[in-house]
Amino acid sequence: MKNFVLLITTFFFAATSFAQTEDSAMIKKISDEILSNGKAYDNLRQLTKQIGARLSGSPQMVKAEKWGLQKMQESGADKAWLQECLVPDWVRGGKDKADAFYNGAVMGARNLLLSHKQLDVLALGNSEGTKNKDLTAKVVLVNSFEELEKKKDSIKGKIVFYNYKFNPTFIKTFQSYGDAVQYRGGGASRASKYGASAVIVRSMTHSADNNPHTGALRYDTTFPKIPALAIGLKDADWLSQQLQNDKIINVTIKTNAHFLPDTIGHNVIGELAGSEFPDQIITIGGHLDSWDPAEGAHDDGAGVVHTIEILRALKAIGYRPKHTIRFVLFMNEENGLRGGTKYAEEAKAKNEKHIFALESDAGGFTPRGFSFGGTPEQLKKLQSWVPLLYPYGTYEITDGGGGADIGPLNRLLKTPVSELGPDSQRYFDYHHARNDVFENVNKRELELGAVNMAALIYLIDKYGL
Amino acid sequence: MKNFVLLITTFFFAATSFAQTEDSAMIKKISDEILSNGKAYDNLRQLTKQIGARLSGSPQMVKAEKWGLQKMQESGADKAWLQECLVPDWVRGGKDKADAFYNGAVMGARNLLLSHKQLDVLALGNSEGTKNKDLTAKVVLVNSFEELEKKKDSIKGKIVFYNYKFNPTFIKTFQSYGDAVQYRGGGASRASKYGASAVIVRSMTHSADNNPHTGALRYDTTFPKIPALAIGLKDADWLSQQLQNDKIINVTIKTNAHFLPDTIGHNVIGELAGSEFPDQIITIGGHLDSWDPAEGAHDDGAGVVHTIEILRALKAIGYRPKHTIRFVLFMNEENGLRGGTKYAEEAKAKNEKHIFALESDAGGFTPRGFSFGGTPEQLKKLQSWVPLLYPYGTYEITDGGGGADIGPLNRLLKTPVSELGPDSQRYFDYHHARNDVFENVNKRELELGAVNMAALIYLIDKYGL
Repeated sequence: MKNFVLLITTFFFAATSFAQTEDSAMIKKISDEILSNGKAYDNLRQLTKQIGARLSGSPQMVKAEKWGLQKMQESGADKAWLQECLVPDWVRGGKDKADAFYNGAVMGARNLLLSHKQLDVLALGNSEGTKNKDLTAKVVLVNSFEELEKKKDSIKGKIVFYNYKFNPTFIKTFQSYGDAVQYRGGGASRASKYGASAVIVRSMTHSADNNPHTGALRYDTTFPKIPALAIGLKDADWLSQQLQNDKIINVTIKTNAHFLPDTIGHNVIGELAGSEFPDQIITIGGHLDSWDPAEGAHDDGAGVVHTIEILRALKAIGYRPKHTIRFVLFMNEENGLRGGTKYAEEAKAKNEKHIFALESDAGGFTPRGFSFGGTPEQLKKLQSWVPLLYPYGTYEITDGGGGADIGPLNRLLKTPVSELGPDSQRYFDYHHARNDVFENVNKRELELGAVNMAALIYLIDKYGL
Repeated sequence: MKNFVLLITTFFFAATSFAQTEDSAMIKKISDEILSNGKAYDNLRQLTKQIGARLSGSPQMVKAEKWGLQKMQESGADKAWLQECLVPDWVRGGKDKADAFYNGAVMGARNLLLSHKQLDVLALGNSEGTKNKDLTAKVVLVNSFEELEKKKDSIKGKIVFYNYKFNPTFIKTFQSYGDAVQYRGGGASRASKYGASAVIVRSMTHSADNNPHTGALRYDTTFPKIPALAIGLKDADWLSQQLQNDKIINVTIKTNAHFLPDTIGHNVIGELAGSEFPDQIITIGGHLDSWDPAEGAHDDGAGVVHTIEILRALKAIGYRPKHTIRFVLFMNEENGLRGGTKYAEEAKAKNEKHIFALESDAGGFTPRGFSFGGTPEQLKKLQSWVPLLYPYGTYEITDGGGGADIGPLNRLLKTPVSELGPDSQRYFDYHHARNDVFENVNKRELELGAVNMAALIYLIDKYGL
C-alpha cells in the first residue's frame, strides 16, 4: 500500500514539473484555440443537419464528400483531393416492419382474441429483406448461441429471436458490445444453418428507450441469406416475456433491404506538407459514411469534425509540421471498409512511409485517453506523454489498437495506430440508432476530443515514434 | 522522461495485482448490484417528474421530504427521521421580465424607430424584485469589476450589465465558475454602492442555448438592495454588441422576487447502525432542495438518488457496516445552507464522533474521481485506494475539500470531507437553468457515481481514516 502512495504522489509532482515545458505551452496554445475559436460544433451541425445520414452509395454520401473537400480547403490544407474507391450500395428500400400476433386475453372459454403488437425494428445492414413481401412465422426465443444449438431441431421455418443481453456489469461499454455483437454479425447465418426463415436480434445497447440499433451483418454464404432485423429493448423484453410464458407468437416481417451494384465513393484527403520529413506521413481520420436511420452525429460525425478541426487549429496558430500530416475522411467504414482498405493499398503501392495513424471513431464524448497498437517500446513512449495530456482529460494510453479505418494501414504497412478513447457510457445509447443526432453531442466534450488528439499529433510530429 | 515511463508502468502493474484482493471482489459485488438492479434512475424520475423543483420553503420541499423519508425506509435504513431546521423562504412571485428598447433602423432622417426586444431573464435567488412594477433605466455595460470602477461616476440610476465571460479555456468548468460567480454573488451590491438601480448578470455557463441561469446572490446590507437578473448568453451577446456600438439601450425590468418569513424545513436522515463502532459516524449526502425554474435533476437530484442508492445497494448485498453510516438529504444548500449547518451543530451538541463525510453535488455525470479535505496523511490513504477504484472510473483523488453541506461538519468537528468529482463538461449547461431536467441525465453515468461513492465508503468503513 505504501509504495502506491509514493508512486501516486510522485506521479502528480512530476506532472507538475512537466507542465513547465515548451510542450506544455504549445499544447495549451492548441487547446485555447480549439476551445475559444473552435469550428467543430458548427461543422457537425452542418454535416448532420444539412446532409444527414450518408451511407455508402447514397446521394448524401456524394454531398458529404463535396462538403468534406470544401472544409479541407477552407481549413487551410496545402492540398486536398478525393481518393476514389468502389463501395457497396446497400439500401433499406422503405420502412421495415414486424408485427407480432398472439392469443390475447381470454374472454370466456371460446373466445381467444388474436392480439397484435407492432414491433420497432430495423433491418440489419447488408441483410437481404423479404422483397417487400410478408413473411410470417412462429418465433423461437434463444438467449444465446448455446441455446440455439439445443433448439436446433425445432427452428426450421421459424423466426429465431436472439435475446442476448448487453451486459450492464462491464464498466467499459465496448466490452459489452464486443460480447454481444456476434449475434448481430453472425446470428443470421447460424440460424439459417438450421433452416430458420429469419432472425430478430436484440439491439446492442443498454439504453432506456425502445430505438432499434442497426449495424452490419455478414452472411456465411454456405447457407441461405435470410432476413435479419434489430429490435428495440422494450419490445425485446416484451417479446421474451411472452415467449417465456409459453405463448405462441407469430411475427410477420417485411423489409425491402437489398444490395444495388457497387458504386463509386471517395476518401476525402487534406494534407499539410512536412517541413523536415515531407516523405513521412502522419494520418488523422474519422469516417464520413454513417448508417441511414440517423444523422451519424457521434458515429462518426464527431471523428469527421475532429479531423477537420485539428487541421484548422494547427493552421490557425501557425504551426508548421515537420512531417506531412494527412487529414482523412474515410468512406465506407460501416459496411465494407473499402475506403480504409484503398488508402492503405495505395500507400503500399506508392511505397509511402506512414509513421503513425490516429482515428476518432468512438463518439464525441469527454476524452479519457487513447488506445494504441504498436510495439511495447512505442507504447511506452506514448505513455511517457500522459502527464502533458493529463490536464486535458487523458490519463491513460492502453494497448489495444487503432480505429477500423486505419487497421489496413497497420496490417499492410505495420504503421503504429491509435484511437481516441472518449468516455463510453452514452455511446451505445445512440450507436446506429435514430437518436444519433446533433442534439446529443455536447460542444465542450466534442472540442476536448480534438484538443487531446491534436496534442498527441503535435508530440508525435515533434519527437517521432 | 524515462522515469515517467517506469512510474506509469509500475502504476498499472500494481493496479493489476491489487485487483486480486478481497476488496476488489467486494467492490465488484457492489458495482454489479448497482449496475444490474439499480434504482437511482427510477428514483430520479420520481423526484424530478412527480415533485419537480423544490426550493426551501416551497410546498414541493415538503413533498420531497416525505418522499425522501419513505425512500430511506423502503431502502432498508435501520431507522430514518426528519431533522428540523428553519429555512429561508425566497419566492420568485411570478414571471421575471426584461425588455430592451432602443433606436432601431433609420427610415429616413426623421424616422428613428423605437425597437423592442424581450430578453430571457431570471431574477437571482435571494434578490429583491421591483415589487412587480416596471423599472426602466439606461443600461451601462461593464465587462469586469475593474471596468465598473472606471465607470463608477456614470452609473447612478442606471442598470449595470455585467458581461463577464465564462472562461472557455479552463478545462475543469468549476474553475470557470469560481472565476465568474463573484459577479452573480456580489455584483448587485457593488453596483448599488455607486447608485445603480438594478443589475443584469451574464449567466455562468458556456452553453450553446439562451437559458438564463439563476443562483444565489448576497447583498452587502450597507447598500440598497437592488434587483438583480441573470440573462441568457445569446441575449447577453446581443446586448453587449448593441452597447459596444454606442447604442442607447433602455431596459424595463419587472420582478416580484421577495422573501417570506423563515419557515420549517428538514434534513432527511436514514441510518445503518455500525456493528463494531456504532458511535463512529460516516455521512453520505446530497441536497434535497433545488432552484425553482427546473427539476433539479443534476443539481442535486443526482446526489439525492446516489445517497439513497448506496443505502439500498449495501442492504441488498447484505453488507453490515462496522461504523454507523448516515444517509442524509440536506435541506437548503442553495440559499442558506441551513440544513448542513443544523446537522453539524446538532452533531457537535450531542458530542457525536464523525469520522468521514462524503457528498455528491456536482451532477450525475460519469465519475472521474474525488476531491478531499483533510490531513495530507488522510489524503495519501485515500489515494492508495485509487487502484481499487480505477476500474470504475476514478483515477484521481485531489486535495480540495468536500461539498457545501458537509462544510460545517468539517469546520465544527474537523471531520474529513470528500466530494464525488464527475466529469464537469456538461454541468454548467444545466446548472440552475430550466433545462436541468431528468432527460439530461444518463442512467449509466448516474449509476457509476453511486458505484464509486459506495466503493469509497466501503473502504473507509473497513480501514478507517
